[in-house]
Amino acid sequence: MKTIDVCLSPDLMHLYPVGDRVVVVVDILRATSCMVTALAHGVKSIRPFANLEECRAIKAQGYYTAGERNGEKVEGFDFGNSPFEYMNKKLKDEKIAFTTTNGTQAIAKSQGAKEIIIGSFINLSAVTEYLKNGSNNVLVVCAAWKGKVNLEDTLFAGALVENLKNNIEPDCDAPLAAQHLYNLAKKDMVGFLKGSSHVKRLNRLNIHKDIEFCLTPDQYPVVPKLINNELILTQ
Amino acid sequence: MKTIDVCLSPDLMHLYPVGDRVVVVVDILRATSCMVTALAHGVKSIRPFANLEECRAIKAQGYYTAGERNGEKVEGFDFGNSPFEYMNKKLKDEKIAFTTTNGTQAIAKSQGAKEIIIGSFINLSAVTEYLKNGSNNVLVVCAAWKGKVNLEDTLFAGALVENLKNNIEPDCDAPLAAQHLYNLAKKDMVGFLKGSSHVKRLNRLNIHKDIEFCLTPDQYPVVPKLINNELILTQ
Repeated sequence: MKTIDVCLSPDLMHLYPVGDRVVVVVDILRATSCMVTALAHGVKSIRPFANLEECRAIKAQGYYTAGERNGEKVEGFDFGNSPFEYMNKKLKDEKIAFTTTNGTQAIAKSQGAKEIIIGSFINLSAVTEYLKNGSNNVLVVCAAWKGKVNLEDTLFAGALVENLKNNIEPDCDAPLAAQHLYNLAKKDMVGFLKGSSHVKRLNRLNIHKDIEFCLTPDQYPVVPKLINNELILTQ
Repeated sequence: MKTIDVCLSPDLMHLYPVGDRVVVVVDILRATSCMVTALAHGVKSIRPFANLEECRAIKAQGYYTAGERNGEKVEGFDFGNSPFEYMNKKLKDEKIAFTTTNGTQAIAKSQGAKEIIIGSFINLSAVTEYLKNGSNNVLVVCAAWKGKVNLEDTLFAGALVENLKNNIEPDCDAPLAAQHLYNLAKKDMVGFLKGSSHVKRLNRLNIHKDIEFCLTPDQYPVVPKLINNELILTQ
């Protein structure tokens, strides 16, 4: 049986060889939720950047610039980090360059993986099916918050472990911990996360609507995949 | 209010400044459970070593050598890593040099902390009271398994967060996750941990009795503390 493991922080990536794995990068609040929303609404491709200035510089090559630092839109960028900004007809068939505090760093640290795909609650079932049908072992990489484990990414990892339990076997204790937490939280994820540090941080930014959106499963049946440094939809 | 945070793996220690914190090092299976047992049974002091050969070399200075690598006793050492070995009259008032795969590494990575104490289920209430009465913020450092997060150390961290909830505030999401897991597991920790990777690993070594012992709370009202590189009982 294939296996699934969970890397709870990008700062633990050195423990997980990825050369033969499909990596699912997850940053529920809000990078990977934005990426899924944008591609589902017709954006042509998203180029993730760990480095802010590299992201800014590529605008000259016909990209819209997008992203945040510490939860707030980057000065001079075209778009921020709310999924609602990406339901925008203006962006249809356009290319976006994207950088965030945690999510795009996690993608950078996943380089070398057999495949890199993007996971979020809003495309949970599509990712589940993709992994079920694939032939590779799975590593879920939680973007966390500046290296520190967070609840919302852990819950998503747990959702994958739970939904795949008849097909893919947990490899270690981190997937088991995530699965337990998801089963505890799944009936009311918004309520469960009320005490979480990142949700408190984001509540100060007044984005309750974003949080509810990002925690509502299965809004888009798409699986963004990194091909030649660009995230695109392949199916 | 004081705060409590949880470092789920020694490989995340760079994220946690410890200079003003009391660090609780935990390696439930079995290093910190052995240390508590040994000191409660009259051992004079335990000197922890990250490095196996340094541990071996100090025997010449009148120490008993003790510990394991990958769960098994080190060849040529006097004692292994079962708590039952330390209920031994021969060890009364003696000094032990101790090295293990994970626990003594976690102690080494906690150097620089304001205080370092040793936690395990078998001295849970004593550690809880110590932290409640202290004036410093708390960091629980889980020894994990070669850097990978494990369930049993996480559960102990969660037990501290839960037992201190009226006195010390969780600092981030890791303590909240640990607390949820502990509350889920506490009625039957042995059962809860049956699926865990480290328990499976130890079951192959045939040490069910050790596991049950290490998961039985409050057997010893002692708090080992690191003073001048030696763990001793101060109260």
